Amino acid sequence: MQNQNNFALIMAGGIGTRLWPVSRKHFPKQFHDVLGVGETLLQLSYNRLLDVCPEENIYIISNEDYYGLIKEQLPAMTDDQILLEPQLRNTAPCVAYAVHKIAQKNPEANLIVSPADHLILKQDNFKSVAIQAFEEASKKDVLITFGINPTRPDTGYGYIEYDQAHGESGVYKVAAFKEKPDLTTAKEFLEAGNYVWNSGIFVWSVSSIIKSFEKYLPEVNQLFSQGSQVYYTEGEKAYIQRTYEACINISIDYGILEKADNVYVIPADFGWTDLGTWKSIDSQHEKDKHGNSLQGTVLTYDTKESFIKVPKDQIAVVQGLENYIVIYDGNALMVCQKDQEQMVKKFLGDIKEKGHNEFV
Amino acid sequence: MQNQNNFALIMAGGIGTRLWPVSRKHFPKQFHDVLGVGETLLQLSYNRLLDVCPEENIYIISNEDYYGLIKEQLPAMTDDQILLEPQLRNTAPCVAYAVHKIAQKNPEANLIVSPADHLILKQDNFKSVAIQAFEEASKKDVLITFGINPTRPDTGYGYIEYDQAHGESGVYKVAAFKEKPDLTTAKEFLEAGNYVWNSGIFVWSVSSIIKSFEKYLPEVNQLFSQGSQVYYTEGEKAYIQRTYEACINISIDYGILEKADNVYVIPADFGWTDLGTWKSIDSQHEKDKHGNSLQGTVLTYDTKESFIKVPKDQIAVVQGLENYIVIYDGNALMVCQKDQEQMVKKFLGDIKEKGHNEFV
Repeated sequence: MQNQNNFALIMAGGIGTRLWPVSRKHFPKQFHDVLGVGETLLQLSYNRLLDVCPEENIYIISNEDYYGLIKEQLPAMTDDQILLEPQLRNTAPCVAYAVHKIAQKNPEANLIVSPADHLILKQDNFKSVAIQAFEEASKKDVLITFGINPTRPDTGYGYIEYDQAHGESGVYKVAAFKEKPDLTTAKEFLEAGNYVWNSGIFVWSVSSIIKSFEKYLPEVNQLFSQGSQVYYTEGEKAYIQRTYEACINISIDYGILEKADNVYVIPADFGWTDLGTWKSIDSQHEKDKHGNSLQGTVLTYDTKESFIKVPKDQIAVVQGLENYIVIYDGNALMVCQKDQEQMVKKFLGDIKEKGHNEFV
Repeated sequence: MQNQNNFALIMAGGIGTRLWPVSRKHFPKQFHDVLGVGETLLQLSYNRLLDVCPEENIYIISNEDYYGLIKEQLPAMTDDQILLEPQLRNTAPCVAYAVHKIAQKNPEANLIVSPADHLILKQDNFKSVAIQAFEEASKKDVLITFGINPTRPDTGYGYIEYDQAHGESGVYKVAAFKEKPDLTTAKEFLEAGNYVWNSGIFVWSVSSIIKSFEKYLPEVNQLFSQGSQVYYTEGEKAYIQRTYEACINISIDYGILEKADNVYVIPADFGWTDLGTWKSIDSQHEKDKHGNSLQGTVLTYDTKESFIKVPKDQIAVVQGLENYIVIYDGNALMVCQKDQEQMVKKFLGDIKEKGHNEFV
């Protein structure tokens, strides 16, 4: 039987703009079966967490627009487990809301916080790291982050530097959080050996994280602690509406983790990728002999190293492309060079500017 | 009032494979508004012919599969005017069927035969050439073809060589029909000055063409002349079914025009193009400042000299292409270099071979 104090919070409020045109404002990537494995990223996240905490202790926080999608994809979840944000306020308010609500149910709770849109291939490794982290968090006043041992000098991830001299059983004190580096810096990080990718997965007791909120983000903390009268009641929705309007927009990393002195990291390897870009999704796919990743019915001619994706009932015939991304979905087609895929954000901005909101 | 002896035959049986994925077996190009002008190619053809003969004298011949499309697009046409072929047998049987059926209604008929899927921009010029041709055909035992004065050494068209010494009022005796030439030959044709493109539009009296059938394709002629008992009756369909099965597959050009010695051409300029390929359609479109033809909502980045087409309610975002054709329609996407567009036939062959008939 699983530890009744173990809780999970799935953060599923992102829009996943970099995965346009599959990820849309009304249907973001976490609700898609991005990899074509038969489960959406949200369902994969949920099922992964069922391994480390009881079903009724799994909470999800997302934008209120996605309530229907959540109910459809996770029908076992009750409305009490689904926290709805009226607007985007980054991760600190989101965590504050969830920990105060969970603390009211169980002040002894230990909480794992995980984004919905990441991929973890080695479930066993994840499970053992999570269990170890829950144990640490239940015994000590620590904030634990999951670090991924880097396999390449990736410039798309944030890094965590840890102190190799201060650690035991694979849990190390964090020395610093590092923004996405340039390639030279990323190579230095890789060489140094004590840098890991920041997975955005955290474990802490609700008491420890509330203590940190009190210290580093007292106003945010106050806004959500005042809600203890209304959580799990009909008044919750209106209260959250007002609270989010009043609340600042700030990330948990910047607001707390970079400032606190009790932050630890468990460097791990559980086959993690954030699936944040088409390139990262491409890297998860099997390639044909020309290095192409093909999803849907795709015929290629004189085409190499390309990622081509159409829905199941559609066909793509592609001739003469090398290192391209070609994606059709719903009502939109994107053709883009792989090394220009950061332009997706610009594409979306331009589409909005031209008033074509039906394509966003 | 129009001459009651003037008849027209629209040939609309082709599949237009080179315009895949817009042109499909169940919905070929002549039934599409390929240029986005508000009328399909068939409707444009029909309306053009209304200028030169009475409405009730316009006939159409097409595959029986397209009966529904014809009725929908040309609701004024009666079933007697719609000739349905049970199978593809090229243009000679198609003309034989129509002239025998029309001759039964009016043995004095003069007939203009025109493909449904060509574009003519200068309707006035077309009209005066057609009227002149009708007059010639009604007075003399001649087979008249419409030649297009070539504006470039096009290798995609057949040519007609004419005898400049034998002609009056712009009607010249044909010296020879020439298959699609290579570029060197095409340049020689252009320089010579007495070569025109074969538009596939013909004018003749039914008596003259029947005489030619008797001489050059007597078996084909016999098959269709025997039908005079059943045309315009319930027996026509079954009769045509049997007749087409027995009939050879041969073009009117090869079977008659290349052999007959009473073939004339009227060199003309009426803004004609056969719209047979994406490149030819591209050439009809206005270009943006980067030389792109864009149909539908299309955003381009670092993209030049490309033809990009999506349906009205869809968007395409294309980055980093030069000299490409990008077309999405229905359930199929095609990306192809412009100078490789002849591969469309191979694409279709491969799609069929793989059993994906839903995309053909």
